[in-house]
Amino acid sequence: MTAAPEEICLHVCVTCRQAGGPDDKALRPGAVLHRALSDALAQPGAPAVRVEAVECLSVCKRPCTIAVSGPGRWTYIYGDLDAEISIDTIIEGLRLYAATSDGLVPWRARPEAFRKGVVARIPPFKTSSAA
Amino acid sequence: MTAAPEEICLHVCVTCRQAGGPDDKALRPGAVLHRALSDALAQPGAPAVRVEAVECLSVCKRPCTIAVSGPGRWTYIYGDLDAEISIDTIIEGLRLYAATSDGLVPWRARPEAFRKGVVARIPPFKTSSAA
Repeated sequence: MTAAPEEICLHVCVTCRQAGGPDDKALRPGAVLHRALSDALAQPGAPAVRVEAVECLSVCKRPCTIAVSGPGRWTYIYGDLDAEISIDTIIEGLRLYAATSDGLVPWRARPEAFRKGVVARIPPFKTSSAA
Repeated sequence: MTAAPEEICLHVCVTCRQAGGPDDKALRPGAVLHRALSDALAQPGAPAVRVEAVECLSVCKRPCTIAVSGPGRWTYIYGDLDAEISIDTIIEGLRLYAATSDGLVPWRARPEAFRKGVVARIPPFKTSSAA
């Protein structure tokens, strides 16, 4: 079963910031990354992924941080992303994720930033009745 | 809304191991932790939580690792847990989590191992129709 692509959600931590970076919320790298990804995913041909801002993913030591999830799919959390240079990498990683039915992209096929930046992954949630 | 408690799932990484520790899968700290938590959660009065073994949560540098999740609740991933001494702490943390409707336990109320060991958290998944 392939989940409808619009059911894939990208959470972007908008409070992520670098040590010594600006305290202004709108200027934080996480907020910049969120705007850039929202713009990129609104372009024609972009993978069908819903973007949601989140206040904190509790990965504060590895900014910027995102999480990608969808019904029936593994959830992945990535850190160490750059608000300026990681956009194309993230879009490519999302495209690969969206092309799977379970969220599992083979290790070698993942963009390097996703291989190095993985923080954690979680299996799809099964309800008792489906288990 | 409070989710049915049996819908809370605890994933335990059974392949987590310490550097230099035993390679035998059944003796790895993750496998030991999984057995101990399964036993503890089967006791009368334990929080109603389903335990599932998982091969890897991609938090290999911070064994042992668990994830707790449930419909409508934030998912939390914890690392740096000890297969021998963390059982009571984890059960207490699960009890607090189960007592919430959204999975958000106030910081000060969390067991210390959960405050220090948090690896990441992810908001509850919303479907497009519910968003």
